[in-house]
Amino acid sequence: MNTKINTKRKRVKFASDNVTGACPEVLEAVIKANDGIVPPYGNDEISGVLQEKFSKIFEKDVIVYPTASGTASNALALSAISPSFGNIYCHKFSHINVDECGAPEFYTGGAKLVPLNGEDGKITTEELKNSIGGFGIVHHTQPSIVSITQATETGEVYTLEQIKNISEITHKHNLKMHMDGARFANALVSLDVSPAEMTWKSGIDILSFGATKNGCMAAEAIIIFDKDLVGNLPFLLKRSGHLLSKMRFVSAQLDGYISNDVWLKNAKHANNMAKKLSDGLVSTNQIKLEYPTEANEVFVRLPKKMVEHLNSEEYMMSQGELDGKVVRLVTAWNTKNEEVNEFLNTIVK
Amino acid sequence: MNTKINTKRKRVKFASDNVTGACPEVLEAVIKANDGIVPPYGNDEISGVLQEKFSKIFEKDVIVYPTASGTASNALALSAISPSFGNIYCHKFSHINVDECGAPEFYTGGAKLVPLNGEDGKITTEELKNSIGGFGIVHHTQPSIVSITQATETGEVYTLEQIKNISEITHKHNLKMHMDGARFANALVSLDVSPAEMTWKSGIDILSFGATKNGCMAAEAIIIFDKDLVGNLPFLLKRSGHLLSKMRFVSAQLDGYISNDVWLKNAKHANNMAKKLSDGLVSTNQIKLEYPTEANEVFVRLPKKMVEHLNSEEYMMSQGELDGKVVRLVTAWNTKNEEVNEFLNTIVK
Amino acid sequence: MNTKINTKRKRVKFASDNVTGACPEVLEAVIKANDGIVPPYGNDEISGVLQEKFSKIFEKDVIVYPTASGTASNALALSAISPSFGNIYCHKFSHINVDECGAPEFYTGGAKLVPLNGEDGKITTEELKNSIGGFGIVHHTQPSIVSITQATETGEVYTLEQIKNISEITHKHNLKMHMDGARFANALVSLDVSPAEMTWKSGIDILSFGATKNGCMAAEAIIIFDKDLVGNLPFLLKRSGHLLSKMRFVSAQLDGYISNDVWLKNAKHANNMAKKLSDGLVSTNQIKLEYPTEANEVFVRLPKKMVEHLNSEEYMMSQGELDGKVVRLVTAWNTKNEEVNEFLNTIVK
Amino acid sequence: MNTKINTKRKRVKFASDNVTGACPEVLEAVIKANDGIVPPYGNDEISGVLQEKFSKIFEKDVIVYPTASGTASNALALSAISPSFGNIYCHKFSHINVDECGAPEFYTGGAKLVPLNGEDGKITTEELKNSIGGFGIVHHTQPSIVSITQATETGEVYTLEQIKNISEITHKHNLKMHMDGARFANALVSLDVSPAEMTWKSGIDILSFGATKNGCMAAEAIIIFDKDLVGNLPFLLKRSGHLLSKMRFVSAQLDGYISNDVWLKNAKHANNMAKKLSDGLVSTNQIKLEYPTEANEVFVRLPKKMVEHLNSEEYMMSQGELDGKVVRLVTAWNTKNEEVNEFLNTIVK
Repeated sequence: MNTKINTKRKRVKFASDNVTGACPEVLEAVIKANDGIVPPYGNDEISGVLQEKFSKIFEKDVIVYPTASGTASNALALSAISPSFGNIYCHKFSHINVDECGAPEFYTGGAKLVPLNGEDGKITTEELKNSIGGFGIVHHTQPSIVSITQATETGEVYTLEQIKNISEITHKHNLKMHMDGARFANALVSLDVSPAEMTWKSGIDILSFGATKNGCMAAEAIIIFDKDLVGNLPFLLKRSGHLLSKMRFVSAQLDGYISNDVWLKNAKHANNMAKKLSDGLVSTNQIKLEYPTEANEVFVRLPKKMVEHLNSEEYMMSQGELDGKVVRLVTAWNTKNEEVNEFLNTIVK
Repeated sequence: MNTKINTKRKRVKFASDNVTGACPEVLEAVIKANDGIVPPYGNDEISGVLQEKFSKIFEKDVIVYPTASGTASNALALSAISPSFGNIYCHKFSHINVDECGAPEFYTGGAKLVPLNGEDGKITTEELKNSIGGFGIVHHTQPSIVSITQATETGEVYTLEQIKNISEITHKHNLKMHMDGARFANALVSLDVSPAEMTWKSGIDILSFGATKNGCMAAEAIIIFDKDLVGNLPFLLKRSGHLLSKMRFVSAQLDGYISNDVWLKNAKHANNMAKKLSDGLVSTNQIKLEYPTEANEVFVRLPKKMVEHLNSEEYMMSQGELDGKVVRLVTAWNTKNEEVNEFLNTIVK
Repeated sequence: MNTKINTKRKRVKFASDNVTGACPEVLEAVIKANDGIVPPYGNDEISGVLQEKFSKIFEKDVIVYPTASGTASNALALSAISPSFGNIYCHKFSHINVDECGAPEFYTGGAKLVPLNGEDGKITTEELKNSIGGFGIVHHTQPSIVSITQATETGEVYTLEQIKNISEITHKHNLKMHMDGARFANALVSLDVSPAEMTWKSGIDILSFGATKNGCMAAEAIIIFDKDLVGNLPFLLKRSGHLLSKMRFVSAQLDGYISNDVWLKNAKHANNMAKKLSDGLVSTNQIKLEYPTEANEVFVRLPKKMVEHLNSEEYMMSQGELDGKVVRLVTAWNTKNEEVNEFLNTIVK
Repeated sequence: MNTKINTKRKRVKFASDNVTGACPEVLEAVIKANDGIVPPYGNDEISGVLQEKFSKIFEKDVIVYPTASGTASNALALSAISPSFGNIYCHKFSHINVDECGAPEFYTGGAKLVPLNGEDGKITTEELKNSIGGFGIVHHTQPSIVSITQATETGEVYTLEQIKNISEITHKHNLKMHMDGARFANALVSLDVSPAEMTWKSGIDILSFGATKNGCMAAEAIIIFDKDLVGNLPFLLKRSGHLLSKMRFVSAQLDGYISNDVWLKNAKHANNMAKKLSDGLVSTNQIKLEYPTEANEVFVRLPKKMVEHLNSEEYMMSQGELDGKVVRLVTAWNTKNEEVNEFLNTIVK
């Protein structure tokens, strides 16, 4: 398959956080879930209890649909609340706009992603305000959703204040707020706030809760904060082949992930490693940060020679699509101190 | 979630083969795959080697796309080779027609499933011949695919002869042959033929290779026997959220499954248990088989009182939608001899 | 373009009612509408007044959306009230199932047309009752609409009683009733009832009101009897390219058509000509009616030699797809007495 | 219906060119076409001859599909040559992006319109070059079409040189060139070049040929310069309800329009009137042109008081959505000298 990552390079570490396996607690949960005969399609006990566990974490009765991919979560969430002629406002760098091969358009039946320039990786209220319009005019696609990514594609994290300001505009126009939380945990521990504060208390209506990158195998969840937004989602899940028959295995991953603060522990570690890496790079004086390091991603402008050297050392430096010269480095739940040191040493050599 | 299976009953055994966990070899493969940092999106080594392993099994260079659900496999396979205005001929009982909430229609952009009455669970060449038509006339949806299910939804197995006869008509009209192999292994060991014989040697162009039911967690594969049919499939996979980032975990399941004849062993066991169950039921004289037991599903007409008794004993008897009074019993890779005996004893009490 | 009708034959009369031009009153209305500068997209006066005129005809405040084709009317009407995973129950011969190249599937985003065998060209309540099911089960496409064709594809006309019986079942299950009225006027004058009686008073929720065949150029209308069903229709119309900018020209056709009972006069004439033709054919004793002649279509089994003779005389005998040997003859608003005589004479020669 | 134009104002002249009726020659052609019994669905003689007539005009064997709306032409043309995951590069002001309620997305099954900022109303080669990319990477929607509007939405006209430069980039990357020619004739006479020069000789692959605005009732045409691009278009036309049964009436409009240079005469007149209007406005010194007047549209920045005065005089001044203060004035085939004078007099009062 044709993908962005060159398979011939050996050291894919720092290439992304999806190059990792599952953390021990999640693996353990999967092994444990393997026992016994249980009802399929999410009617097993693990899946059932998940609703309560997530409701506790979010301090609200939420509705949870486990899925196996982030693209599925995003596209399904958006399609549940947008008409086929809806406008979905998002940052031009956003995963839904750039990295899902048009999944939101496919699932919604043709909704339009309206790309906003933003400031760095974040949507600005000013631009959003100017973009929303055309209500009720049949010639125009109709404003329906604002989608933000937390943490953003640039490794930045929206403050609660920023989320609230965007939500306010969104709701004033009767649109809905979607959060792509592929790196939800990394943003959460970065802000040091509660899951409730970063979502529904700040105006989020529907969340793609990411878990794969931060320690699962293939487990995400659509989390709905308002029952009325469920709509046809159960049917859309089945209809798209995302209602797995042995759902217990996805649910078990999520269970292992959110139990005993495993997810927060993993995210804290990844963020710390990113900070260490970021600080180390900046201290060389040759390297400039492109965006502030606020979660587990580091964006730096590396001199061309440095990139070539790293590649010759078998690191896989994807020169970000965001900008030709910017390199993205990603840490994960299992990034080791010595791996960061080794990388920094390779750089300064 | 609203599904067909009542979660309150305890003994879901025999309710389906998707109530089971993974077999030990598959679980082991998953655990083993968890180690290390590897490229995502199917660019890992396990995924890479899979192409060769399947090619060996099918005695032909095949192209393999792992997926996490059978509905995804079917819908993606069909959408890769049908235009949006295509006719897909299938048995009226087929999973794609009845049990996928319209996934084929969604993925193809609106193709029409043409339901055939068939004989029991199988398509007949006579009816198929009479149904295909309207070529080139813009008013009519255009014949594009014939899809058969092996083993069928009634637990029967198409003979090689029958597959070939259907393929012949299909190809004579320049249509393509799809096989829904949700229970591929069960059919294969039932016929005691080679994977090649049951597929491309009999005219199958594209196969949904099922593995979940017969010992995996969530692993299926689209297998393409003619490179020209790949079309846009890589993009369709990504676009539908079915290109998992940590693909190694799906590939590992498939690897564990097809290595060392695990899949054949599992299927043989399941079929044997079905035979034992079927024989036991028929020997009561009160019970009639609805369809011959040729794989791992038993369809019987049970007296209403017997169903009630079984339910009272906490068995979960789904009264098949195929016909009000027919009960479906499914055995699996881990069905135990004593479980069959226990069930038969409950019946005859 | 590849269509069903062979263009080389000269005498396409009786081949269909869409081989005719517009009746004088409709042409006059179009010419009159050409004057002046008026607002586009249906905001002109003619379009505005149409709502009131149709409301008067139907004895109820209806909502009217003019369109330029029957396929558009049907597909748009169905898509306004069916989810993408809906079941639309219809006769297996119905235009939406057989003659629209999958337009309903396209517009609805993949709904499933469930073909019923019916009795002759009509749906039966018994079969309908047995087909509707699976409510709330995510594996199944969900019952949403029952669509009947009036007059039917076989030239028969549902009685009010029959419509009411079907509507009753439909509404009992909370589905909606659609009527494909491509030959609405012909059915209406055949039954000699009021437009209200044949529609909402008998349970019809949404109507495709045909006008093209019976004296217009390209004018149909979607007529909605319950405001709540309008849904997103205005956007769907625009989104599909069916909101014409110079809408006045479609509206003018409809205006000329429904004013001064032009439509009823045209339909009566066409039906009378069909009756005359039908009677003449039957009186030959060699020819048997396939279906009773109740509107403006005659279905007869002609001996093969007779078909060949007619074709040699340059008549264009489309051997109906419904059944190999059955020939369909259609009369129209402008069929002349002598044309019927000439045809009968050719037959008996 | 909810549209952009306020119906209460009386003088909609200058509001658009779709507020006009048909020119006498087109009306005459429609009346003439009404006679006789002819085959439906474009198999009539008028429709047949159209292929040759257009081929003569374009100095090349072209394939022509008449349609009844510009939105239909655009969406169908794009869907014939873009996959569902295609990128369609267009100006951010373009009709397909802003004014078709997402028709291209609907027809293509979810392709992505990539809006370019351009310079005034035109795409620039520089920006286009930077936008095309991501070939073969499954995560990204795939570059497929570049669409330009001639004349542009700002009333400007691409020079042949500009079209060729854009086409060169487009074809270098194996994309296809679409031209939205809603005001094709106005652009053509403005450039004073041949239809061939402005289209295939400059690299256009498929054209939406507009006729409605410039003197027809409801008639457009998809014109294909390369047979291989026809693809499934005949089926897509039928499937979307745009294959009218009495097609002769659309074909007749086109015939009357392109015969005897009617279309060129109409366009020249409209352009002249725009020039006169534009010159008159600029001469007031209070008014500045927003874009050069190169076809039949005038874009001016009017002082707020002037807009209010015009509206009080019952002119309908739609304050363009392109920019809050800019007013668009459109002339047509039937704009009268005295109407322009009257408007200018109202302004300067």
